[in-house]
Amino acid sequence: MENKIGIAKAEITRVQGRESSPASDFLVVEEPLEIRLGFAKNGARHQKAISVTMRTPGHDEQLAIGFLFTEGIIHDMTQIKGFSRPPVRWKEARENVLLVELHDEVAVDLVRLERNFYTSSSCGVCGKASIEAVRVQGHWEIAEPTPLVGADVLHTLPSALAQQQSIFDCTGGLHGAALFDATGQLLLSREDVGRHNALDKLIGIALQQNLLPLEDKIVLVSGRAGFELVQKSAMAGVAVLAAVGAPTSLSVALAEEAGMTLVGFLRNGQFNIYTCPERVRLH
Amino acid sequence: MENKIGIAKAEITRVQGRESSPASDFLVVEEPLEIRLGFAKNGARHQKAISVTMRTPGHDEQLAIGFLFTEGIIHDMTQIKGFSRPPVRWKEARENVLLVELHDEVAVDLVRLERNFYTSSSCGVCGKASIEAVRVQGHWEIAEPTPLVGADVLHTLPSALAQQQSIFDCTGGLHGAALFDATGQLLLSREDVGRHNALDKLIGIALQQNLLPLEDKIVLVSGRAGFELVQKSAMAGVAVLAAVGAPTSLSVALAEEAGMTLVGFLRNGQFNIYTCPERVRLH
Repeated sequence: MENKIGIAKAEITRVQGRESSPASDFLVVEEPLEIRLGFAKNGARHQKAISVTMRTPGHDEQLAIGFLFTEGIIHDMTQIKGFSRPPVRWKEARENVLLVELHDEVAVDLVRLERNFYTSSSCGVCGKASIEAVRVQGHWEIAEPTPLVGADVLHTLPSALAQQQSIFDCTGGLHGAALFDATGQLLLSREDVGRHNALDKLIGIALQQNLLPLEDKIVLVSGRAGFELVQKSAMAGVAVLAAVGAPTSLSVALAEEAGMTLVGFLRNGQFNIYTCPERVRLH
Repeated sequence: MENKIGIAKAEITRVQGRESSPASDFLVVEEPLEIRLGFAKNGARHQKAISVTMRTPGHDEQLAIGFLFTEGIIHDMTQIKGFSRPPVRWKEARENVLLVELHDEVAVDLVRLERNFYTSSSCGVCGKASIEAVRVQGHWEIAEPTPLVGADVLHTLPSALAQQQSIFDCTGGLHGAALFDATGQLLLSREDVGRHNALDKLIGIALQQNLLPLEDKIVLVSGRAGFELVQKSAMAGVAVLAAVGAPTSLSVALAEEAGMTLVGFLRNGQFNIYTCPERVRLH
């Protein structure tokens, strides 16, 4: 296999019905990324590995920004002093470790870091407590729902995302997340082998571009809308989260609590609205 | 929302083209599960929470067995003394905590637990080290590839899984994992909101039924085949892992190293063979 950025080539056997032939194929690259946090405590600088995620290389800084922000560790870009690739034991791993240095005055809750983000994704180990944890950490209240986007506009979003993805994804293995304005204009999109990473990268670049809160925007994800995707969207103040796939019981409950419009099964000219339908103009 | 086992009901707005109407819909239930380990150390019993995963309730014991086994914490069922639901602070969370008690003589590597399974999923933070870690932990060498299953049999598996899932999944939100013998007979299947959980549940019940190693079996997963699914399959000695969706660069590299046959995009009478094609009888 020969590596390009995000894509690897593989020699495969392709089978169609009763026919088979050797062929070349493209694979999405999947490699671990360790996010390390550099911070000050008691007058000294410290480093701590806080997350390892399987991701597609590229836009690592945006991934780290989005992750740190949606986990409630940073609140804005000014808290970040810089990024670097620290020396590591395995040379090949150099590109898989990213050190995010925070300014001295940024307080880091080490106990929360030790708990490895149970707090945001499943605090207290029940749905109610998980939702409560997001509410406490949420940076923005999402505004009262008023008409924002037409059903006709929502119908157009999946093909806009698919068109964007077709440029990057010859592997069929990338998840996409895209940001649209209320007229259906695609503003930003990001791809990754992991659904959560694609959304973290999108929120990361949105934070870099000072676009948060996303209270007048629509985010579309190419897969399902589980709890963690709704949680990340809630942290970014997203007004409308639309998914090509299914939501879950807990994602609907969280969207309701957060006042977010959650749309599912958006494909083939159909969709379901699970929460806050007031934001969608129907005919 | 009214909860049944694994399914919740929701009142939604259904939009089809320019028409919209109120409707009832079913949602897959997503709730956190905390797996706690009970073990002996220095003559005393200890408890430690080792994982929280967002899962669909049901078959929790099999999920825990599969997780502990594929993470290399237990090696067989005889190491488990029993399961219980410990008292927790939130009454609603009772069903979301499962205590797995190991026998006194089972040694638990606390350092590995502290590292939160970086070792198996991304040890050393590069693909090579991740693969090396699986090799070291793997319980079984997968046998030299010899013809095992016909291409015609592989073509039939997705509809067998879909038929099985249609019984359980009226939500469109469940991932499936199924075990087949070489004639295409479905032996076992499990569903979950999380792909990894569905496979952990499947491997858990396979271990309970003393079916491991799965060296003459085929495992089919309803989604993509990322590194962690190949890693779990390698731990269970799976000969052929087939996925309806795409593999990744790292999953192909691991399958190659493990000597596992990896099939991707198995749907609509087509598939790709990425590694060890010798196990598939072509026409």
